[in-house]
Amino acid sequence: MVRAAVCGTEGRQFESVPVYQKMNKEKKLSANPPSGFVDRYGNELALKENLIAKIEKNFLKFGFSKLETPSFEISENIGKFLPDEDRPSSGVFGFQEENDSWISLRYDLTAPLARYVSQNYLNISNPFKRFQIGNVWRNEKPGPGRFREFTQADCDIIGSNNLLADAEMCNLLADTLNFCGLEKNQYQIKLSNRKLIQGLIENLKISESKQQLTVLRAIDKLDRVGTDGVKQLLTIGREDKSGDKTVGANLSDYQAEEIVSFINMKSLDEIKSAIPNKLVEDGVDELNKVLDGINYSSNFDQIIFSPEVIRGLEYYDGPIFEANLTFKVKNQKNQEVEFGSVGGGGRYNSLVSRFKKVDLSATGVSIGLDRLLYALVQLNKIEVKNYSPIIICVLDKKYLSNYYELLSQLRNQNIRSEIYLGDSGLKSQLKYADKRSAPAVILCGEDEFKNNKITIKKLNSNLNETSKNLSREEWKKSENTQITCDKENLIDEIKKLI
Amino acid sequence: MVRAAVCGTEGRQFESVPVYQKMNKEKKLSANPPSGFVDRYGNELALKENLIAKIEKNFLKFGFSKLETPSFEISENIGKFLPDEDRPSSGVFGFQEENDSWISLRYDLTAPLARYVSQNYLNISNPFKRFQIGNVWRNEKPGPGRFREFTQADCDIIGSNNLLADAEMCNLLADTLNFCGLEKNQYQIKLSNRKLIQGLIENLKISESKQQLTVLRAIDKLDRVGTDGVKQLLTIGREDKSGDKTVGANLSDYQAEEIVSFINMKSLDEIKSAIPNKLVEDGVDELNKVLDGINYSSNFDQIIFSPEVIRGLEYYDGPIFEANLTFKVKNQKNQEVEFGSVGGGGRYNSLVSRFKKVDLSATGVSIGLDRLLYALVQLNKIEVKNYSPIIICVLDKKYLSNYYELLSQLRNQNIRSEIYLGDSGLKSQLKYADKRSAPAVILCGEDEFKNNKITIKKLNSNLNETSKNLSREEWKKSENTQITCDKENLIDEIKKLI
Repeated sequence: MVRAAVCGTEGRQFESVPVYQKMNKEKKLSANPPSGFVDRYGNELALKENLIAKIEKNFLKFGFSKLETPSFEISENIGKFLPDEDRPSSGVFGFQEENDSWISLRYDLTAPLARYVSQNYLNISNPFKRFQIGNVWRNEKPGPGRFREFTQADCDIIGSNNLLADAEMCNLLADTLNFCGLEKNQYQIKLSNRKLIQGLIENLKISESKQQLTVLRAIDKLDRVGTDGVKQLLTIGREDKSGDKTVGANLSDYQAEEIVSFINMKSLDEIKSAIPNKLVEDGVDELNKVLDGINYSSNFDQIIFSPEVIRGLEYYDGPIFEANLTFKVKNQKNQEVEFGSVGGGGRYNSLVSRFKKVDLSATGVSIGLDRLLYALVQLNKIEVKNYSPIIICVLDKKYLSNYYELLSQLRNQNIRSEIYLGDSGLKSQLKYADKRSAPAVILCGEDEFKNNKITIKKLNSNLNETSKNLSREEWKKSENTQITCDKENLIDEIKKLI
Repeated sequence: MVRAAVCGTEGRQFESVPVYQKMNKEKKLSANPPSGFVDRYGNELALKENLIAKIEKNFLKFGFSKLETPSFEISENIGKFLPDEDRPSSGVFGFQEENDSWISLRYDLTAPLARYVSQNYLNISNPFKRFQIGNVWRNEKPGPGRFREFTQADCDIIGSNNLLADAEMCNLLADTLNFCGLEKNQYQIKLSNRKLIQGLIENLKISESKQQLTVLRAIDKLDRVGTDGVKQLLTIGREDKSGDKTVGANLSDYQAEEIVSFINMKSLDEIKSAIPNKLVEDGVDELNKVLDGINYSSNFDQIIFSPEVIRGLEYYDGPIFEANLTFKVKNQKNQEVEFGSVGGGGRYNSLVSRFKKVDLSATGVSIGLDRLLYALVQLNKIEVKNYSPIIICVLDKKYLSNYYELLSQLRNQNIRSEIYLGDSGLKSQLKYADKRSAPAVILCGEDEFKNNKITIKKLNSNLNETSKNLSREEWKKSENTQITCDKENLIDEIKKLI
């Protein structure tokens, strides 16, 4: 017999861990999660899981395979490694290991994918189509509705230069939004190519990379600040209503005008003739091929060319796309909010080459799951199943074996059910059933067991106070929601209720 | 229009994040996950998700509701807070916040539950029955098969002193193991009560708490070191084969004999008469009530009284139980390993009172998911569904619109499918289909489209080399796995294959 840890650490949960010692018994702890983190329970959790299941099903339908990478990556691999700083933790959650190296919680799902592809290059298919749905962590200042842990749903195709792959991504995004419950007129997918703005920047001789980024960032703000705002951000800078000042890109009026004119162009032909540049030409050709691929699908009307789309500043280098909702979303104070996109992506080339001397082209899409969920809830588009059990009340402990017999019958039919396991009387049991949103309780005492009968009381889970101050007799009087049936009809009667 | 973050940080994924800059392009990164963390893909991931789905279904059947707490807790709440140390991170992954407080990744699912119950005390049902399946993190030395991130599946009932709740936990554990594929003779659930050994320790006047812990730890090692080993650990200490020395509890021979005699007792009556003590009496009474509850179920034969069970040293204070496998498990070198338990739990009382001035009694069970999975794989007990898509090969790009038409037909029937999206010819496409374990490829060219036919080639995913060196003509010759049918029969023919 060899002494070895098989799944090792897991086993530790079963060993003795003096976790709860050393606590000062007088001082009570704060019962909050850390700021920026939340608990999920009941309907809120069911809604989210329902959405995840739908998205996963659709990703599978499109031929993607699931990957699960760990929460942690070597910090260097995350990419947000800042060598000047003592702790590479600005924006990420980083830990120093015993050997002084750093590991970090993943910041997105793309860096882990690049790392995985590099490591498994010889064993995976080419192209490699993977999806991952998982949490990511951002060590940023939390605020109302701004979390430090949230869920992303990503699909990527690695190793293909074929522009039909980009079309597939747009189709996937549109199809997934449909599948999750959005009507075709409730969203739009904006499509562009980073080569267009890069070509224009080249023609306008904006060569300094910091200035280029400021230009991209300015265009990216079109939705929020409008054309005039973008113009200010491209030139002298902009002050918002609160007095906050954003530094401008310091372009000349001519340069700014050219860019504003570009972002208002409506067709690829217009751009091609207005901006004579090799990059622009390539970009337009690529987009025409993407549009061909989209044309073959039924999503053509939802996908529109929009030159103002920018997305990840230093990340994408080909076709890019972004899904936006066409309806207004409100916050908890019933105020309309600027909602931003629910998903998007594009083509990127340099991720895998950071690890391996191969240059794999990739295209991917990311769906903001919590954000999409928020919008769907407002549209009342996600139904939740009631997973609450049938509750067998304990009217008299001497009938425990009878109650357990009923329980076995229910559970053998895979019906969610339980015997009340608290220490209180009937009133509390009914209150408990209400709080659990139980579809029904089973109320059996001497009368029932003597006559081989079962009493079932249907509960209206919307009426959370049904049990308040009701005696058992009063309960039984509300005949319309209560039935007494033969014991052998238990399963049939319960199945009618669930 | 109000500018507000709705689901805030989620949106950041769609903004520009300069994540991949600042990398030295010459130095290639290591493509490994950090040590102690693993990627999961393909069958391995499917098996794990399959098992999680089964466990969740069974937990719901027993009337538990799902809770999801965040990855992070305030470090003090984790419980493993060591005030003497500068960084409270021994064993846990802890982060210092900007305000100098500490947060930690959860170490188990019980501390977050206690925190949640305290915070939501007035809104939740009483008793509160929740389950959670999620990852926990241990900042411990990783080793072969010893991970620093792994999955636990926990069920707890909070707020009930009713010993039927403990019986329910044993039944749940047995039922879940059955439901996951174990036969009744492939596992055993050992049941005891911490009050028994506490009563004996009291009678033996072992009053020093450190010595008590050493005694408990010695008994806990019975499986590994045998009766003689336990006796050594209770007295002078023990040296193992490698020469490692474990300090003993320094008991007298009489005390050690009494304890060894205790752990070999087979019945509650025997213990009650051999150890005259109030705690022992209470413990025996409690266990008899638990056994009553188990008696009502069909799991009675799998649950046996075993006084040597100890579990969490300073955690449990009533009935405790532990599931062990009755068959031998082997490691990857085909050596039998000491496998330890696949789950267990017990009654604990002081967790919630750390937060709130209420003393809630609780009982719970935890299943070691990765460990159980490992055992089930050895028994060949988990089947995996093939989620790979049907692949439409691109024989000639001029038929792209025809390929897309076929794709639409398949996807409209929710059949997982794709058009090959790489850049290579047919041989590579077939090789790709093999690597993906695709159930079939669709091979259509001029012949097919002219005659309104479809050629479908069934792939044997066990034969990963089907495509090697085959020309299309050779492919077509292997008639037994390839059919050509009318275009309108596409869906019917494909459905036969999946």
